[in-house]
Amino acid sequence: MSIAVGIVGATGYTGSELLRLLALHPDVELRAATSRDMAGQSVAGLFQHLRRHVDLAFVAPESAALKECDAVFFATPNGTAMRGAKELLDAGVRVIDLSADFRLRDAGEWQRWYGMEHASPSLLNEAVYGLPEVNRAALRSARLVANPGCYPTAVQLGFLPLLERGLVDQSRLIADAKSGASGAGRKAEVGLLLTEASESFKAYGVAGHRHLPEISQGLAAAAGKSIGLTFVPHLTPMIRGIHATLYAELTTAATAEDLRALYVERYAAEPFVDVMEPGLMPETRAVRGSNFCRLSIFIPQGGRTVVVLSVIDNLVKGAAGQAVQNFNIMFGLDEQAGLSAIALQP
Amino acid sequence: MSIAVGIVGATGYTGSELLRLLALHPDVELRAATSRDMAGQSVAGLFQHLRRHVDLAFVAPESAALKECDAVFFATPNGTAMRGAKELLDAGVRVIDLSADFRLRDAGEWQRWYGMEHASPSLLNEAVYGLPEVNRAALRSARLVANPGCYPTAVQLGFLPLLERGLVDQSRLIADAKSGASGAGRKAEVGLLLTEASESFKAYGVAGHRHLPEISQGLAAAAGKSIGLTFVPHLTPMIRGIHATLYAELTTAATAEDLRALYVERYAAEPFVDVMEPGLMPETRAVRGSNFCRLSIFIPQGGRTVVVLSVIDNLVKGAAGQAVQNFNIMFGLDEQAGLSAIALQP
Amino acid sequence: MSIAVGIVGATGYTGSELLRLLALHPDVELRAATSRDMAGQSVAGLFQHLRRHVDLAFVAPESAALKECDAVFFATPNGTAMRGAKELLDAGVRVIDLSADFRLRDAGEWQRWYGMEHASPSLLNEAVYGLPEVNRAALRSARLVANPGCYPTAVQLGFLPLLERGLVDQSRLIADAKSGASGAGRKAEVGLLLTEASESFKAYGVAGHRHLPEISQGLAAAAGKSIGLTFVPHLTPMIRGIHATLYAELTTAATAEDLRALYVERYAAEPFVDVMEPGLMPETRAVRGSNFCRLSIFIPQGGRTVVVLSVIDNLVKGAAGQAVQNFNIMFGLDEQAGLSAIALQP
Amino acid sequence: MSIAVGIVGATGYTGSELLRLLALHPDVELRAATSRDMAGQSVAGLFQHLRRHVDLAFVAPESAALKECDAVFFATPNGTAMRGAKELLDAGVRVIDLSADFRLRDAGEWQRWYGMEHASPSLLNEAVYGLPEVNRAALRSARLVANPGCYPTAVQLGFLPLLERGLVDQSRLIADAKSGASGAGRKAEVGLLLTEASESFKAYGVAGHRHLPEISQGLAAAAGKSIGLTFVPHLTPMIRGIHATLYAELTTAATAEDLRALYVERYAAEPFVDVMEPGLMPETRAVRGSNFCRLSIFIPQGGRTVVVLSVIDNLVKGAAGQAVQNFNIMFGLDEQAGLSAIALQP
Repeated sequence: MSIAVGIVGATGYTGSELLRLLALHPDVELRAATSRDMAGQSVAGLFQHLRRHVDLAFVAPESAALKECDAVFFATPNGTAMRGAKELLDAGVRVIDLSADFRLRDAGEWQRWYGMEHASPSLLNEAVYGLPEVNRAALRSARLVANPGCYPTAVQLGFLPLLERGLVDQSRLIADAKSGASGAGRKAEVGLLLTEASESFKAYGVAGHRHLPEISQGLAAAAGKSIGLTFVPHLTPMIRGIHATLYAELTTAATAEDLRALYVERYAAEPFVDVMEPGLMPETRAVRGSNFCRLSIFIPQGGRTVVVLSVIDNLVKGAAGQAVQNFNIMFGLDEQAGLSAIALQP
Repeated sequence: MSIAVGIVGATGYTGSELLRLLALHPDVELRAATSRDMAGQSVAGLFQHLRRHVDLAFVAPESAALKECDAVFFATPNGTAMRGAKELLDAGVRVIDLSADFRLRDAGEWQRWYGMEHASPSLLNEAVYGLPEVNRAALRSARLVANPGCYPTAVQLGFLPLLERGLVDQSRLIADAKSGASGAGRKAEVGLLLTEASESFKAYGVAGHRHLPEISQGLAAAAGKSIGLTFVPHLTPMIRGIHATLYAELTTAATAEDLRALYVERYAAEPFVDVMEPGLMPETRAVRGSNFCRLSIFIPQGGRTVVVLSVIDNLVKGAAGQAVQNFNIMFGLDEQAGLSAIALQP
Repeated sequence: MSIAVGIVGATGYTGSELLRLLALHPDVELRAATSRDMAGQSVAGLFQHLRRHVDLAFVAPESAALKECDAVFFATPNGTAMRGAKELLDAGVRVIDLSADFRLRDAGEWQRWYGMEHASPSLLNEAVYGLPEVNRAALRSARLVANPGCYPTAVQLGFLPLLERGLVDQSRLIADAKSGASGAGRKAEVGLLLTEASESFKAYGVAGHRHLPEISQGLAAAAGKSIGLTFVPHLTPMIRGIHATLYAELTTAATAEDLRALYVERYAAEPFVDVMEPGLMPETRAVRGSNFCRLSIFIPQGGRTVVVLSVIDNLVKGAAGQAVQNFNIMFGLDEQAGLSAIALQP
Repeated sequence: MSIAVGIVGATGYTGSELLRLLALHPDVELRAATSRDMAGQSVAGLFQHLRRHVDLAFVAPESAALKECDAVFFATPNGTAMRGAKELLDAGVRVIDLSADFRLRDAGEWQRWYGMEHASPSLLNEAVYGLPEVNRAALRSARLVANPGCYPTAVQLGFLPLLERGLVDQSRLIADAKSGASGAGRKAEVGLLLTEASESFKAYGVAGHRHLPEISQGLAAAAGKSIGLTFVPHLTPMIRGIHATLYAELTTAATAEDLRALYVERYAAEPFVDVMEPGLMPETRAVRGSNFCRLSIFIPQGGRTVVVLSVIDNLVKGAAGQAVQNFNIMFGLDEQAGLSAIALQP
């Protein structure tokens, strides 16, 4: 079985990661990779690692035969998919959007955080939020999938079991998150130069980061009521990886072992969530290039504060890998197809 | 004026950093750098950056003329200074210990965390905790100074103003701290190899880190009552720098601007504490090699959670630089003598 | 078809890389991973990235059922395979040694460079040097394969076409090679700490590196006469990758395009050698985690000095990947089996 | 004594490094730092490490009182100083240009390599090439100094003694140079992002780099005849540092010890050139932030190929530090004034 796939906006990191994963996917035929700026140039010319693996040339979006594809991935900046998805959906193409365009249920909320009016508010209800650990059933029949952000994936998978069971005070959650520089995308910005971002560590967006409403929406759904979250992202001097350190206060007596058992049970059937044994701590490098989310749970000094450690590769489980996982679910494939690679360590 | 100085245990990072700072200190004459293993070998042979600047050879501790020094710095592993300090103090030498031996007031507490009996409990009361921003007056006449740990310096300077004024719930403080690899010292450990520690991020010591009781002791003194702290340290893929992200819940109405004004006032006379303007965030690289602690204060989404960002160079303000600052105070020198270097950026 | 495989000495980087590659190899059944120190402990406990992929426990060499394996890889320090290979060969097991034990034809030469007497000089003639681009035919029937070193692989593949055709002065070859820190192995050494090896660049072994005789032996065979080589290795602040910059003087008139055509022809049938188009330069990151060697040829300022750029991942084409490639050839499998992964970029 | 100094183009790395060095220079009063884009904004707002050290605001070039300065440094892109220097010189201001505008004697050669016509060819003869180890006497009275490039500094200091004595074949010199990313400047380019340039190593400009004619001009002057040089620069995954590995063929019998003695003698009076003892190799980190050039000389396997290792900090001895050294010489100051800092290691 071969599924025809197109990628819109394939010159960024989520796009090139989709190319890396889909090029080896047993059930996929890569039909088109679009780029307005690079149209006509070879994909492997831009991405040296794809030499001998991808022989497509970039094509302008308008000239790409996207409507003949079975599925189209949008790896575009925010604001593009919300304009282009409708036409493809009407043509019977199933769409997976890796941008933020369809992640928030509320168009007004989206506009507040993204600074532009939403072009397809009517699609917001249909769009399925692509966190398989929460929405697998809905994803099977989804026409339009909103692939989660990188921080939201790491933070939600870390908090979900606690909130679903109502074990912590959902009004004062804290997510201290650290991301490698690839999370900022393949953009020529001085602040992201090796000379500026390596050998240094800093927080950013403390006053308010766009992933905050997305995380809050997901956590509130899990808790069944509104939640309060303080989210502080940090830029870490490495290429890939997110490490979320999560803090919540227990509202009921529980040991770390109780909580760990709960996490193990909650994620027992999940192919890409790995709950570690007591005392072990996850490292981002051990998921580098893989689709795993690895979790650890602690209650330091036997107090009431729960600490959850959650790591992912921001470009894989935090973007392209999760998109492929959603694609596999949508098309009834083995959920791990094309995602079996072992993390590259060291 | 020239003050004779000796360094015990000069082959580690705090020791080599003391050598780097003291070699250019206008009022210091470096008399001895001890090392049992490297006795007889040249300091510049081990530390290439000290060629043309330091022409001492390492000498065995017992053969070093430490008693003829005016001041001796211990840059030794925990458990050494508590054995050697007394004899020097009796000889009239003033001692600055960069290890943890004299940081905790309570010998029993020290034994619980450091796993050995304290050899000089009687000195614990005399030892002055060397955080100039808190104990400057006492440091002037101190014979024995316990130089603070790196995490404790960053965390205490960030929390002090809030706790001294009783503005936050001191029972649920959170310190999410990130340190460069030099914080672990110059030790041949697989986990600290470039191949293991670079391009990765992880938490460690979540169940309990030795700096926890030291931080708690200092914060409780500032608050005037016992405090509750969750402290999670992380290993960051860089050489130098600590970034502490601190969380506390306001118990009174206040704006970020109110709090910032409080910090500015609290540290107005401090030569090495820099409170940033509203909205600005500190970067560890901007204190690399310098003795500054740089702070920012936020109240995200106008809620009740205060977020304080605190950065230092763990080897300078977090170790050797603060030790030199304490030395300057003890000997009535310009507090900034030997510490005027600008951070190396980029 | 499933081939039973054992790995002797699986706790180093070449060993863990073999585990990473063989765990996903379609024709391999991993039977044993030995370690004297870690016997009884789980492989995934030591290598977090192998969780969910490898559920073996390390076993002591003597208790491992190595003789029941079809093939055994030695990923041991120099001096081990030369003692253990014979017994396995006698039991009909085919052996691939990733150490240096069987790389040099001359036992005396080996002893000079490795400082110990060779334990199995009689096997040196039988051992096939595992550079498939040179010895593919012999590898098909080999019982014992000496897997090349990382530098020797990059340097030989870069020089071979020039020497085989006698186009350059073979008496004054220069190989300026740069390697990531993983080339030094998973050893607890101060010089390899992140704090010592990152943010710095240095040469080492200038007076004479053990890979020199191995490279010279291979280049002399290609040239059909003795060669003169100056080989300067450098430690580069990254985890993986070797970049060899090769210099030779043309003894005949030729353009870069002529030479490139020669390289393209020489490696036309090679699945893992990629000769770049004129003007393009290879990056080590574009082979990170892959088995490719990528080459570029230049003649700067139209002079007589040829510059060849050769890059590999030292742990893959420079070690474990090439070992698997040799294994595939020995057992008549698809030469690319288990080696199809695309490099991880960024 | 206080010398009024201005910096034209102070927003790049050579500019910020000049600010870092001059802010602590005992004989300098910083009068102006110009930037067209940042005019009116505070210097410390752009460069966080200069907070508390530099309280200037950037000023537009035309409104800067540059003519009232005693000395003006140009830290501008190529093509700017050649237009602005004349007016300042006529006003009696002494000029130090850190760009390439006045480095080549031949205006035609300059135009070939820099792609624009030279605006002040008449000044090319007056300009003194600012390599103190060669032109100290001329620098004392120079009005206009052409500060050398980073690669040219490292390569020339490494080759000079050999060429001045005519000990090697000057027609086939090889310089394999490796530079940290700061050598490319503070420019928003995708190729210099942490995500693109870290964890990778590559050559660039193999066909011809602009520093080639500058190096050749200097080496030819030392040799007293034209020379042949193959120069291959490489991008290294670190912020600061250049390591040049130089190869030349002896035309006379000599031992490494003979050559080392020659280097020691040649540089005996040089405050910033450090020739290492036999067998020792320089590391770039050991000159990080310092003005030293450190050299080692080898003759591997007692052959005829000399290998010289030369390291500098590209932003200090390779740019701003050497500019300050030249400034000190021009104004009769202690040559080491403002340049005494010890390298930051680790």
